[in-house]
Amino acid sequence: MRLTAALSLLAFNVVLFAPVARAQTVATPPAPEAGAILSLLHRQEADWNRGDLDAFATGYKNSPDILFMGRTIRHGYAQMLAGYRKSYPTRAAMGTLSFSALEVQPLDGHFATVTGRFHLERTAAGGGDASGYYLLVVEKTPAGWKIVRDATTNEAPQH
Amino acid sequence: MRLTAALSLLAFNVVLFAPVARAQTVATPPAPEAGAILSLLHRQEADWNRGDLDAFATGYKNSPDILFMGRTIRHGYAQMLAGYRKSYPTRAAMGTLSFSALEVQPLDGHFATVTGRFHLERTAAGGGDASGYYLLVVEKTPAGWKIVRDATTNEAPQH
Repeated sequence: MRLTAALSLLAFNVVLFAPVARAQTVATPPAPEAGAILSLLHRQEADWNRGDLDAFATGYKNSPDILFMGRTIRHGYAQMLAGYRKSYPTRAAMGTLSFSALEVQPLDGHFATVTGRFHLERTAAGGGDASGYYLLVVEKTPAGWKIVRDATTNEAPQH
Repeated sequence: MRLTAALSLLAFNVVLFAPVARAQTVATPPAPEAGAILSLLHRQEADWNRGDLDAFATGYKNSPDILFMGRTIRHGYAQMLAGYRKSYPTRAAMGTLSFSALEVQPLDGHFATVTGRFHLERTAAGGGDASGYYLLVVEKTPAGWKIVRDATTNEAPQH
């Protein structure tokens, strides 16, 4: 049931850029790689919506070199997690997260970028709804695809 | 004179991440590559401050696959340039651009990310000062290092 929903979400939202235009310059990851990258994001959604920030954070590479750009720039796994904990201290502040308009673009066999839109559904007490766009750089590591750079923009709150 | 200023700017602003931590997983570009990447950005500053948007735009790869994320997401060179023209229609709207806190992080031999802060000094008629952060993905192409992804955040205007 869960899988079916996830697959239809993929079919609906995902634009996979045609590899043809880039074939002469880069090694394009095969479609299963794009699927693995999207699985990472859908796992993050599910982890967030269970209120499990620690599990959510494992979508990022556990490295001091990773970088998160929101209103400011933070480096490293520990600072990334601390930032999330500060911005989302309670279950109500976390709300319900959904990603849409996901788009995977390969860079080469080991790196790709993903863009998407996030929406947070929250009670007024939790901070109200929020949404924005993100650009991620993901890396194929021995532990699977992981986020190594994250640029997230927040739009003005919607009421 | 110009070169001296550029070099001291590099020495002051640039943090080059130690390659040691990533040596086991990625091919780290040598320091001259980081210098070439920074030259691209300093050339963009100079082109902008001459009011030459066409020259500024050549810092991006001329490809339909490039992606620009600001308040929304735009694809391709033509749309990127059209976006700049719309947001900065006059010399006064372009103002004087400066980059700071530049940081190059290699991904592999052909890709790297750059983060930095931009500041636009403008007259009130030009729209007032503006600033924010950006995250770029740059690619080593036959024509040199070029921007292939750009995520730029705008802070609230400063008056």
